[in-house]
Amino acid sequence: MNKYVAEFIGTAVLVLFGCGSAVLTGYGSAPIGMLAIAFAFGLAVTSMAYGIGHVSGCHINPAVTIGVWAAGRLPTSEVPYYIIAQVLGGIAGAAILFVIASGKLAGFDVATAGLGQNGWGEGYIGGYGLGAAIVAELVGTFVFLVVILGSTSKAGITQAAGLAIGLSLVMIHIVFIPVTGVSVNPARSIGPALFAGGKAISQLWLFIVVPLVGAYLAGLLFKLKVLED
Amino acid sequence: MNKYVAEFIGTAVLVLFGCGSAVLTGYGSAPIGMLAIAFAFGLAVTSMAYGIGHVSGCHINPAVTIGVWAAGRLPTSEVPYYIIAQVLGGIAGAAILFVIASGKLAGFDVATAGLGQNGWGEGYIGGYGLGAAIVAELVGTFVFLVVILGSTSKAGITQAAGLAIGLSLVMIHIVFIPVTGVSVNPARSIGPALFAGGKAISQLWLFIVVPLVGAYLAGLLFKLKVLED
Amino acid sequence: MNKYVAEFIGTAVLVLFGCGSAVLTGYGSAPIGMLAIAFAFGLAVTSMAYGIGHVSGCHINPAVTIGVWAAGRLPTSEVPYYIIAQVLGGIAGAAILFVIASGKLAGFDVATAGLGQNGWGEGYIGGYGLGAAIVAELVGTFVFLVVILGSTSKAGITQAAGLAIGLSLVMIHIVFIPVTGVSVNPARSIGPALFAGGKAISQLWLFIVVPLVGAYLAGLLFKLKVLED
Amino acid sequence: MNKYVAEFIGTAVLVLFGCGSAVLTGYGSAPIGMLAIAFAFGLAVTSMAYGIGHVSGCHINPAVTIGVWAAGRLPTSEVPYYIIAQVLGGIAGAAILFVIASGKLAGFDVATAGLGQNGWGEGYIGGYGLGAAIVAELVGTFVFLVVILGSTSKAGITQAAGLAIGLSLVMIHIVFIPVTGVSVNPARSIGPALFAGGKAISQLWLFIVVPLVGAYLAGLLFKLKVLED
Repeated sequence: MNKYVAEFIGTAVLVLFGCGSAVLTGYGSAPIGMLAIAFAFGLAVTSMAYGIGHVSGCHINPAVTIGVWAAGRLPTSEVPYYIIAQVLGGIAGAAILFVIASGKLAGFDVATAGLGQNGWGEGYIGGYGLGAAIVAELVGTFVFLVVILGSTSKAGITQAAGLAIGLSLVMIHIVFIPVTGVSVNPARSIGPALFAGGKAISQLWLFIVVPLVGAYLAGLLFKLKVLED
Repeated sequence: MNKYVAEFIGTAVLVLFGCGSAVLTGYGSAPIGMLAIAFAFGLAVTSMAYGIGHVSGCHINPAVTIGVWAAGRLPTSEVPYYIIAQVLGGIAGAAILFVIASGKLAGFDVATAGLGQNGWGEGYIGGYGLGAAIVAELVGTFVFLVVILGSTSKAGITQAAGLAIGLSLVMIHIVFIPVTGVSVNPARSIGPALFAGGKAISQLWLFIVVPLVGAYLAGLLFKLKVLED
Repeated sequence: MNKYVAEFIGTAVLVLFGCGSAVLTGYGSAPIGMLAIAFAFGLAVTSMAYGIGHVSGCHINPAVTIGVWAAGRLPTSEVPYYIIAQVLGGIAGAAILFVIASGKLAGFDVATAGLGQNGWGEGYIGGYGLGAAIVAELVGTFVFLVVILGSTSKAGITQAAGLAIGLSLVMIHIVFIPVTGVSVNPARSIGPALFAGGKAISQLWLFIVVPLVGAYLAGLLFKLKVLED
Repeated sequence: MNKYVAEFIGTAVLVLFGCGSAVLTGYGSAPIGMLAIAFAFGLAVTSMAYGIGHVSGCHINPAVTIGVWAAGRLPTSEVPYYIIAQVLGGIAGAAILFVIASGKLAGFDVATAGLGQNGWGEGYIGGYGLGAAIVAELVGTFVFLVVILGSTSKAGITQAAGLAIGLSLVMIHIVFIPVTGVSVNPARSIGPALFAGGKAISQLWLFIVVPLVGAYLAGLLFKLKVLED
């Protein structure tokens, strides 16, 4: 049970602080704030890796759970509980963010300001199409899982894994924020979408399906011992 | 005795460099400097974690001391001395910052420029209300303590703990600077408030009470073995 | 074979994310984005160091392979396979980046926007001449190899090596982006040049020759036990 | 002999990349570039800590050598050779930077652009007076040495020391660049001053005397076992 509490807390922290960096500071999509937003997401993962990693492994992301499972490192029976805890955590994180954002004295309208939801297409940050969104999320999640599975493999395990994993997420955000806002994590997308509504809901499928596929492919590479010495 | 000297020095460094990044460079509340300010606060904790951590554990924050104590990892008899050393250190750090800032040849007026004090409401950075301030400080301190207690737990202890803890404070600042300037640390708030006066004094209660509550709750989670494997 | 797959993936990640940070976000050469671009390149190396380092050592750079070989740490027979895998990986990374960039709904013209290719002279970022370009690439690669060879030497090996190496590349980019865009890696230059064409091709020789020389010199220093205790 | 070669190389790297970040990119004193400059200096120390630390301990700074000596961790006989190597390295780094900067096709005038030299007073970045400069350099060097001596003490030694030390220098730069440009290192000040001339020479005494005093005081604290458990 403890590990599911840990996953719930960890995913809530990821969504609250990751999306919060975009929402509370009003950086919006201006280039100036992208590095800060990238660090907020990445450091949330690093923080939780050291805060709850000893309890649950700190997946805080259904795609990570699927990738770790595909690599043969997680019993199938635990997968649904991990994912449920993560999705609930993502919603809780978005809810806390909504409460804080609503405290802005000048007013806060989630319909216009958003809640850090993912997306693509005309009007979404850099204005990239569906194809670019799919490739970015697929490659992004694949790379994220290679770092996670490699840095925690028996041959490669290191106390610095939590730093490397978080910093890889910083890198992914620096590059792909203009394309999709970067999900690589269905739970991170579901929470904010429920509050933002509209397009965030109709585009949600991509941020569930594509990261899971990318993570599964990376997990297979490790399962098949391609990325082992 | 050494550990109280260490806590005094460490807290002075945190306030001098954290608040100094906002005061000396004149970044003020402009988004451009927020990432730099966030790094100044976080790296102050990382620096001191490795500089004095082997002496006192590097709490440099009464809320951390309360959280560590609530988790059952600090004897009750040491708590008051830790806190006294931290508050005196915070005042010393603010005093050194005041001296340096006063050396600005174009003049420095603490009443208008401030000394990096915390606050909320109309006119304070992002303009968030009391409720948002309470939630941000409560959640921020809770998360900060989860990282501290998790990364230094027997199961999770790592040489990278000082990095993870400092970087989690970077993350908290990236997101909550617009709301309260981020305290999560009564000693960090008391020092600058004594020099800034006015609203900083009348709002000081929040930055004493709320971080202590948030830290206590996180400590309990570990005491009750919820966040243990 | 696994190590060549790893080198292929790692170099593709370096080019996709490093060059992608300059191309997708439209930061271009504006100072505001240089720190983010520097982090993208450096964190790509850190990410892959922990993701595939246990498989191939994570050279993902022909200059690194030459430097490690010159230091006597890699059998001559493996050198060509490492380099072939890296060059193919660099091309693959550039190809993926081209696909994503082409998804920009407002249109993407590689001839004007470029693909993060290296260069020098009038019109290239800071406008530095050939001599400055040679010195920057020579010194940059030399320093990069000193960090790599020192942090992974028997006396100095550390779990933090992947962090130190990636962060040294961040540093090199912060300083030399205005001069050459920073190669210190023939594979990183070849991939984007093939897509960008024109000057990127005619200037490519420098980014193949100079990094290899700089890396070889650093390798010699270690081979001759100058940088050993 | 190897350790003096290592100190020479390391100090050259610190000056070339630290000062280079201010000179080559034309960030000048604009707030926008301060974080990047701070990272360039700090990551130079981190890079060299892992690159040459196993050879010489990576002081690359006469103040560090004096502090380590004052703490009783370096034989008196080695002190002059460390310092000579560092000062020569600092000059070499400044010379390489001068060569690269002179390659700017639009022209480079060291008298107006400077070479990253330290200073204070009217016209120097934030415009702070002599008193502020002394306090900033004294406190900055003291804190830097506490991190160095603490993170490498028997009780506190850690593979992450090189990261913590470099990041503490990032922090010091974020805060004190407006005051003095941050020396805390006589060798870092001497090199650029020789090329910049004028005020940089007449103000050089402060950046030699004050860092040495600050470092000596920190060394004493460890010698007297005040900062030991």
